[in-house]
Amino acid sequence: MNIAFIGFGKVSYTLSKLIQSQDINLITSTENRSQDTIYLIKKSNVEVFPSYGEAIEKSDIVISAVTPFKAVDVAEKCRNTNVIYLDLNNISPNTTLKINDIVDNLVDGAIIGKIDAENPILYLSGKDSEKLLFLNDFLDVKIISDNIGDASKLKLLRSTYTKSLSVLLIECYSLASSLNLEDEFFNILSLTEGDEFKNKSLSRINNTLKSSKRKAEELEAILEYFDDEDLEMVKAALHKLKQF
Amino acid sequence: MNIAFIGFGKVSYTLSKLIQSQDINLITSTENRSQDTIYLIKKSNVEVFPSYGEAIEKSDIVISAVTPFKAVDVAEKCRNTNVIYLDLNNISPNTTLKINDIVDNLVDGAIIGKIDAENPILYLSGKDSEKLLFLNDFLDVKIISDNIGDASKLKLLRSTYTKSLSVLLIECYSLASSLNLEDEFFNILSLTEGDEFKNKSLSRINNTLKSSKRKAEELEAILEYFDDEDLEMVKAALHKLKQF
Repeated sequence: MNIAFIGFGKVSYTLSKLIQSQDINLITSTENRSQDTIYLIKKSNVEVFPSYGEAIEKSDIVISAVTPFKAVDVAEKCRNTNVIYLDLNNISPNTTLKINDIVDNLVDGAIIGKIDAENPILYLSGKDSEKLLFLNDFLDVKIISDNIGDASKLKLLRSTYTKSLSVLLIECYSLASSLNLEDEFFNILSLTEGDEFKNKSLSRINNTLKSSKRKAEELEAILEYFDDEDLEMVKAALHKLKQF
Repeated sequence: MNIAFIGFGKVSYTLSKLIQSQDINLITSTENRSQDTIYLIKKSNVEVFPSYGEAIEKSDIVISAVTPFKAVDVAEKCRNTNVIYLDLNNISPNTTLKINDIVDNLVDGAIIGKIDAENPILYLSGKDSEKLLFLNDFLDVKIISDNIGDASKLKLLRSTYTKSLSVLLIECYSLASSLNLEDEFFNILSLTEGDEFKNKSLSRINNTLKSSKRKAEELEAILEYFDDEDLEMVKAALHKLKQF
């Protein structure tokens, strides 16, 4: 079986390390790729084709893991093919539906948690998800439903919660600091939230402040997609994120 | 040593079970107490005096654990005495300062977590806190600082965070339900938030919805006390709580 990676960043690189089997041939292309990507490809045990067209032609499965704005273009390359098309991109569920109109056997996928975590979990949705269940030999695979879009929505849901939580943490931590009670704030919450609460929270606070602009853009796109006026806390989080 | 409990609800009852020593005599009064309270007193190993005045007169330490609006009145009963006065009431830090003007040796106390939890922790602040460190023999005691008000503030800080978090959980859970992804929402978050995330969150959601009016009142009082316009997420939480 041939699996082609379109895009070879951290996601494809990590998956290529995990999916190691005599029955599976991993392939990709260096077509129009940056030096960094070519370096990652050379470090990996994948067969390289001069063009994506050739790589796709040889494939049973195509995994798309590119920058979000290229996701639709990549799908176009697979129009009128028979490949199982796994889209792992950080795209809106609406874009996932658009891609579903382009390719024939779309599986909507989302890797939850960091891809380079010890046990990444791959969530899948769509009727063809079962055809990818064999990947369970290499990483934890969970099928959500037959509905294209559910994996993308789940990713947005997670992001909605964690981004808003991070802003709430910033707000409360800042209040605690103004009272000179920041250590005690973490200590008392660790009693109910678990021993890792302090480290986890500080890391969330720092990551959010470090990339507040990007996170604000992402949260804005999420709110636009869900278009739900009840999301008052999330909206407050966005408003605050924009001010950092 | 004599320790008098003023008020004998769940807090005093639980403390009276924990503080068991041959050197300590626990006392209280049934003056103006309800049948329920008298029942709790009878179940406990405490000496009963006909009036609070007599109990206080015999005491080295007075522990006040009453309904919040009676906290100042109880302190008045100890004006011009030499007792160490431990206030455990759910009162605003401003009320704690008022009580500090009434009694001579105030210790500001807060029990964090449920009082009937396995290991309740007693946080103390104020210069006389050290005089209560012997309570460490019976439960976990932590001294925050010399400042009267810090224990009360810490309690408000905790409440600010947990109440706002509960509303955020309600908001995200409701969004997940509308997408038919509520189980998956909990599952993916458990990966990063810990195995207990689902049960803890559902219990927070239910408790908040069950007593949303009281929680809204508490959060409103907290916002009034902190008087900080940066608390946008907390304000959004209050606005939402009022609608439930």
